[in-house]
Amino acid sequence: MKLVDIMSPDDLKKIPQPELPALAAEMRQFLLQKLQRHGGHAGPNLGFVEATIALHYVFHSPADKLVFDVSHQTYPHKMLTGRIRAFADPAHDDDVSGYSEPSESPHDHFVIGHTSTSVSLAAGLAKARDLKGEKFNVIAVIGDGALSGGEAFEGLDNLAELQSNFIVVFNDNQMSIAENHGGIYLKLAELRRTKGQCEDNFFRALGLDYRYVANGNDIDSLIAAFREVQNIDHPVVIHVNTVKGMGYAPAVADKEAWHWTTPGFDLVTGKRDGGDSLGGRVADHLLRKMKEMPELVVINAAVPAVAGFTPQKRKLAGKQFVDVGICEEHACAFASGLARGGARPVWCVISTFLQRAYDQLSQDLCINKNPAVILVSCATLLGMNDVTHLCWFDIPLLCNIPDLTYLCPTCEKEYFAMMDWAIAQTERPVAIRQPENGVRENECALLADYADCSYEITRRGGKVAILALGNFYELGQRLHAALAAKQIDATLVNPRGATILDAAALEALKRDHQLVITLEDGVIDGGFGEKIARYYGASAMNVLVKGAAKKFADRYDADEFLRQNGLTVDQMTEEILSLLY
Amino acid sequence: MKLVDIMSPDDLKKIPQPELPALAAEMRQFLLQKLQRHGGHAGPNLGFVEATIALHYVFHSPADKLVFDVSHQTYPHKMLTGRIRAFADPAHDDDVSGYSEPSESPHDHFVIGHTSTSVSLAAGLAKARDLKGEKFNVIAVIGDGALSGGEAFEGLDNLAELQSNFIVVFNDNQMSIAENHGGIYLKLAELRRTKGQCEDNFFRALGLDYRYVANGNDIDSLIAAFREVQNIDHPVVIHVNTVKGMGYAPAVADKEAWHWTTPGFDLVTGKRDGGDSLGGRVADHLLRKMKEMPELVVINAAVPAVAGFTPQKRKLAGKQFVDVGICEEHACAFASGLARGGARPVWCVISTFLQRAYDQLSQDLCINKNPAVILVSCATLLGMNDVTHLCWFDIPLLCNIPDLTYLCPTCEKEYFAMMDWAIAQTERPVAIRQPENGVRENECALLADYADCSYEITRRGGKVAILALGNFYELGQRLHAALAAKQIDATLVNPRGATILDAAALEALKRDHQLVITLEDGVIDGGFGEKIARYYGASAMNVLVKGAAKKFADRYDADEFLRQNGLTVDQMTEEILSLLY
Repeated sequence: MKLVDIMSPDDLKKIPQPELPALAAEMRQFLLQKLQRHGGHAGPNLGFVEATIALHYVFHSPADKLVFDVSHQTYPHKMLTGRIRAFADPAHDDDVSGYSEPSESPHDHFVIGHTSTSVSLAAGLAKARDLKGEKFNVIAVIGDGALSGGEAFEGLDNLAELQSNFIVVFNDNQMSIAENHGGIYLKLAELRRTKGQCEDNFFRALGLDYRYVANGNDIDSLIAAFREVQNIDHPVVIHVNTVKGMGYAPAVADKEAWHWTTPGFDLVTGKRDGGDSLGGRVADHLLRKMKEMPELVVINAAVPAVAGFTPQKRKLAGKQFVDVGICEEHACAFASGLARGGARPVWCVISTFLQRAYDQLSQDLCINKNPAVILVSCATLLGMNDVTHLCWFDIPLLCNIPDLTYLCPTCEKEYFAMMDWAIAQTERPVAIRQPENGVRENECALLADYADCSYEITRRGGKVAILALGNFYELGQRLHAALAAKQIDATLVNPRGATILDAAALEALKRDHQLVITLEDGVIDGGFGEKIARYYGASAMNVLVKGAAKKFADRYDADEFLRQNGLTVDQMTEEILSLLY
Repeated sequence: MKLVDIMSPDDLKKIPQPELPALAAEMRQFLLQKLQRHGGHAGPNLGFVEATIALHYVFHSPADKLVFDVSHQTYPHKMLTGRIRAFADPAHDDDVSGYSEPSESPHDHFVIGHTSTSVSLAAGLAKARDLKGEKFNVIAVIGDGALSGGEAFEGLDNLAELQSNFIVVFNDNQMSIAENHGGIYLKLAELRRTKGQCEDNFFRALGLDYRYVANGNDIDSLIAAFREVQNIDHPVVIHVNTVKGMGYAPAVADKEAWHWTTPGFDLVTGKRDGGDSLGGRVADHLLRKMKEMPELVVINAAVPAVAGFTPQKRKLAGKQFVDVGICEEHACAFASGLARGGARPVWCVISTFLQRAYDQLSQDLCINKNPAVILVSCATLLGMNDVTHLCWFDIPLLCNIPDLTYLCPTCEKEYFAMMDWAIAQTERPVAIRQPENGVRENECALLADYADCSYEITRRGGKVAILALGNFYELGQRLHAALAAKQIDATLVNPRGATILDAAALEALKRDHQLVITLEDGVIDGGFGEKIARYYGASAMNVLVKGAAKKFADRYDADEFLRQNGLTVDQMTEEILSLLY
């Protein structure tokens, strides 16, 4: 049977076991071709082809439930569960998401995109099964760095109390996105060296049963191991030693670079376009500052390249760069401790992962008023658009925590000025929303001190005032021009930060304006604009709050999304005109 | 030297070691007397007297840095660091907080109240020390259940990379607030049985050095153990086996009940007033429902008694009650998994701890739209008032997450009606804010279905409309009466939920009202009122948003706090009158 004819795991089971390696090779070809034309997660999927085949060969999905952590390694799973067309036919590339998705298939049980969640989610399925007196296998796949996340530990720690069937497949590919970090990985290396026999086994220390598969890319060993634990009556961990990127030499040679790939690389050599990026320029700026300030330390939770810290730049930073692994809670508390100890911590974090540390932001950092600096990247409506990776809930998250300053620069030049101030001061925690609009410079006036700063009025007009925050300043400029074309000389304001409420400026607007429109590159609920609406609530000033509606969105087209939210210049011009009296 | 003469750890060090047990006895007397007149954390402090003495006898605080997890066990530490008067003199009871507090003493480095944070915070101090080339001991005290929290694991996992001085004192009192849960505690029991010698040591599995102290209430053994690791050049864990409640028989006999105590108990017998509580009535209601619904399961993270589940009621619930230990992230993801698996999970959580699971609420639960029920308790401005335990940030936290319904009943009767609906439906995640105003019944009209329900207009008037949410409905009633006395026949509205925006009702108000006032028992930033302000932003309706200002508050007087926030009926009446035209 050919891969394209496999419509379900039942079809897979008809293939004689000796023919499965050939199937794996075929799957890798499809994977690479799709990655080449479409981009996506490379290393995690390439390394888990054999394990996926073995899982579906032994277990009976969807009766048996497979839950994949992060679920960026589910491409092979999708290929074997009726979704091969999305890999075999370029016209259907977008039929499936890059993550598990229940709306696509009964073989997927959760939408999952953040790490370290599979054990807890699957434990819920197992407990529900037990309460209802049902019988099936529950399998949680975890690995690829996710084991260092606290939620994974909490889940594993609770398994021992389950006392019924539960199978953890720990995919040990010896990597996170970059190299692994944390003491646990030292011991895991020892487990691999000793073929699972060494002392002080982490899983056994949590009261769990444990097995080891030395070659996790060998289908026969995997099938044997899975058959051994099928229908087991207690929780067990199968430690599977795999090679990230397996079967594609460039991905094996540079595992970090091939965790995820853009499309268009050379299939034979793996050559891709690199190029200048804001992340790279930020890293260079911080490296320069590190030389002057030995107490400056950059913290990152397992996505150093997004912060511009390539392996070369990490080496240059030495002890002044700390990758804590996937654990944002620790990253945040650690930053607070560093600041309290007199160091100058800069935590680089992607918007969507920042929310993993809400309690630490509030308790460990802000209640203590420790002067850590947080650089929030990718925060825009126009960037990552998978529902699990939306980067536009950070404004409500941060700007409703007391004693936190959240600055939103409008361009790169302003970003660096704010960063320099934030690092130099030692009074307060400061977060800065990295600009994502590609604008390197605009007309903005830079300040030496952004503590409780004022709004910058860049165009003083009348009737309508546009408060255009951060990334959306450029949209504000375009709106200003469109209104000018309608004979409205609007005021244009750069509010400089989502937490800044410049009462003097807002009061002054009352004199000769009747409408304030706020623009923010994020969800409006709980955000900046609502605070302006509240401020003017009991006055005659009208306020129009613009941003994204509170709604999860998935794989949307940016232009269409802006239109749906009434954020095009034409729509807003029309809306403003309709509101003026 | 007598206890009252100890002004600093230097004074303590002058006491000959053989006299220290007598000092411990004296400290316990002071502790018990203060607890008896003032209330507070009993068991954790009673059990940690000897270890605190030994720590200060060996180490040199504040040059050496002691960081206490949760820090509710710092009463003995405060006694020995210049704050004895707050324990010896009833007039000075309130001079100190119940947690570590840098503003009180240079011996305290962080404000800490949530669990599982000490290792990460202290790791920051240690890394700052190393960057600055300084030398001192960093000691993180953790225990009392905190080890099951993911943040603690993340911190411990990162220690191995520190490669410099770090001492973890693991206070193993064999308890969380209630009994411990999780596989890790099975192995810890084995470590105690084998005096630290058994296989599969959790700490060693994280690459950490490890020592064991069998009697953690014996000062001599503790001093010897601490001297051994003083100035150590790598991270080490000292596992200290203590007795929670040590030295007070009632607290040793019932460790759960004596974790924390109200004042006024009988010092000899430990007898305290119990009595009926809403938590107890909720537990009874859920126990009744469990009998009808075998798939109903109540989840709690280590504070079962707050949810009304006393040991007796937990026993009645059997497999339908799960205490996951201190790990809110797992609790939330587990609830999502249970709901997905067809069970009916009800997660009982205190407002301040709910925020430990923001990412799980958004990702694991709401993106997946799984119908878990969350009962949020203690959520009010008028309850817990330690800065680390404020329970009034839950509205912004929950009501800005898409696809989550957050209901806010005005009285107990409405709470139970909402709970019954939430458990019966299987369409969506629903959180309910447990009423905290003591009102068991009011005039509210109950619904059979609270999905996207409408506002309840309980008094139809004109000019002014009061949207009085949840706990503050009763305040709304009083405001309504006060306005009536001023000849203003206001409209009074029960909005039923913080996420409910009843456009029809809000539009209808435009006809004959000029001002809407929103009342919410929480912080206003990012909350319910701001959404109403945004709704009416571009209309002629004025909106006055009332609640607490975004500001951390600590040990405040409730009446004074309401006054500072302009929340008294008199203040609001005056403000409303000033706004009417």
